[in-house]
Amino acid sequence: MKRSAAKPFVVGIDLGGTKILAAVFDHRHRLLVREKKSTKPELGADAVLNRIAECVNEALAVSAVAHSSVAGIGVGVPGMVDTRTGTVRVAPNLQWQNVPFAKLLGARLRIPVTVVNDVQAGTTAVQQFGAGRTLRDFVCMFIGTGIGGGIVLGGQQYRGSAGMGGEIGHMAVIADGGPKCGCGNRGCLEAVASRGAIVRRVIEEMKDGRKTLVRDLCDRDPRRIRSRIIAEAYLEGDKLVREIINDACEYVGIGAANLINVLNPQAVILGGGLIEALGDKMLPRIRKSAWRHVIGATSERVNIIDCGLGDDAGIIGAALLARPPVK
Amino acid sequence: MKRSAAKPFVVGIDLGGTKILAAVFDHRHRLLVREKKSTKPELGADAVLNRIAECVNEALAVSAVAHSSVAGIGVGVPGMVDTRTGTVRVAPNLQWQNVPFAKLLGARLRIPVTVVNDVQAGTTAVQQFGAGRTLRDFVCMFIGTGIGGGIVLGGQQYRGSAGMGGEIGHMAVIADGGPKCGCGNRGCLEAVASRGAIVRRVIEEMKDGRKTLVRDLCDRDPRRIRSRIIAEAYLEGDKLVREIINDACEYVGIGAANLINVLNPQAVILGGGLIEALGDKMLPRIRKSAWRHVIGATSERVNIIDCGLGDDAGIIGAALLARPPVK
Repeated sequence: MKRSAAKPFVVGIDLGGTKILAAVFDHRHRLLVREKKSTKPELGADAVLNRIAECVNEALAVSAVAHSSVAGIGVGVPGMVDTRTGTVRVAPNLQWQNVPFAKLLGARLRIPVTVVNDVQAGTTAVQQFGAGRTLRDFVCMFIGTGIGGGIVLGGQQYRGSAGMGGEIGHMAVIADGGPKCGCGNRGCLEAVASRGAIVRRVIEEMKDGRKTLVRDLCDRDPRRIRSRIIAEAYLEGDKLVREIINDACEYVGIGAANLINVLNPQAVILGGGLIEALGDKMLPRIRKSAWRHVIGATSERVNIIDCGLGDDAGIIGAALLARPPVK
Repeated sequence: MKRSAAKPFVVGIDLGGTKILAAVFDHRHRLLVREKKSTKPELGADAVLNRIAECVNEALAVSAVAHSSVAGIGVGVPGMVDTRTGTVRVAPNLQWQNVPFAKLLGARLRIPVTVVNDVQAGTTAVQQFGAGRTLRDFVCMFIGTGIGGGIVLGGQQYRGSAGMGGEIGHMAVIADGGPKCGCGNRGCLEAVASRGAIVRRVIEEMKDGRKTLVRDLCDRDPRRIRSRIIAEAYLEGDKLVREIINDACEYVGIGAANLINVLNPQAVILGGGLIEALGDKMLPRIRKSAWRHVIGATSERVNIIDCGLGDDAGIIGAALLARPPVK
């Protein structure tokens, strides 16, 4: 299981509460093959680990890369991670606590496993391959099931004094109540502007009998609603979805403005599946909302931009962090 | 006008929209004498400069320190400052634009003048003499006419890529409207939780006929309402003031929580006149509100504390920044 520079390939995994994404990268970090599987966290950690291993095996088979040519596997996990031991300390969406992830997955695949926080992985990708390439100070907002944030200051990722920073999804933007958030509070940005929040609102309105194309697009099964379906309905002119997405843009803009007011970065960089699918529609609205809430002359100098990596930021960054250091 | 180590004294000035505070410090940076004067910005920059010079002259006279023994004067200004040239670029509360402050005040007093942003001055004081002495990562919240923020990361003040960061008073905490802020937006933290916002609300409620001790304490002249009067009414059990202060604590707590969620500092440190007067009453409420909005385990490691310098943080820090470097 020793890493070796003679092994040119790496695998990146983005472990989400809904889906597992795995990809194989060559020696120049070009993405060769991408595989996807549902996570099914309700089956328990062992079953999820097996599904991850299957996903990796499939990706390697399709790309015709032997396990023995893979230098390492990097996994981005939505939770708190001990990168030294490869243990997942807490991952709420997976309902995991103290899972010795690197050990368990390494044993299944006989390849060294590196475990990192998913947002940290995505931020690394944006920094090295995305819109943050030429910037020293920026903030990433990844809009998915939740809203994660990566802060880069002076070219370094900043995670706070105890490594708990970047929780931009839990900035309170509606102080007097607001919808309940997964974290237990009310009025968090995540509770009003994440893809999760958007889907929840669509489902509620559907239950209340509101007309929407989403009903047919998801075959009347709300569990099937993904970013792609939301985007399709939006692009078809669905009134309900447009209303909900526009509200979300308003809130994301406020979140971006708060970060700009406090940190004055060079850019706020947006990523995640919804931005990949609807970025060109959402970004102008997000900017408009942000500029209304940014103070003074700051706005002139700050860009709000797409990360340029779509939903792949997580796998690109995780794979990068698994690459053995160049000697 | 050359600085010399043979001149042991420095003067610190906190220039606010309401009052000018000047103090003389000895060679060990002990505060000898503090003088105060109203600012009267409506009289124009020249008049304000004369008032500052008078305030300094009085302070020097009372402390029996000769002008020739003063190494420098540091002035904290509520606005954007070009520290290199000593020019105040914009100071909204004073309605100043491009005032060559250091030159004009230096000519009046024949002592070298250093101009800094007031919040930067306060943060420097907290870092060197206040509750931030032993900390590497902390955020200051100065609650006054507005709400200013100082961010210290890795022992260094962080002002953002264009020096415009730290505007924590303009985080939007009420996304859907909220009271109008001086910056033109709605729902900013400053618009609901600054001393300015508190006084405005007291005055409105008084106009609506609500009973409050403030009416007598300010001799029925609302322009006389200061932190001290608010504090007195609070301590006397005034129902209206308690209600308004408690609401403000709720919002300050949310602002602190947002900063903790994003930056995960070691501490959030509170300062300003209102905290000096009512800190022991307000801090427990601010903490309670913050812990309700902080995500995960972060709260266990983050302190929310008084800066320990009262309203003097500004003059202490400004004077410190005027001190010639030790050879």
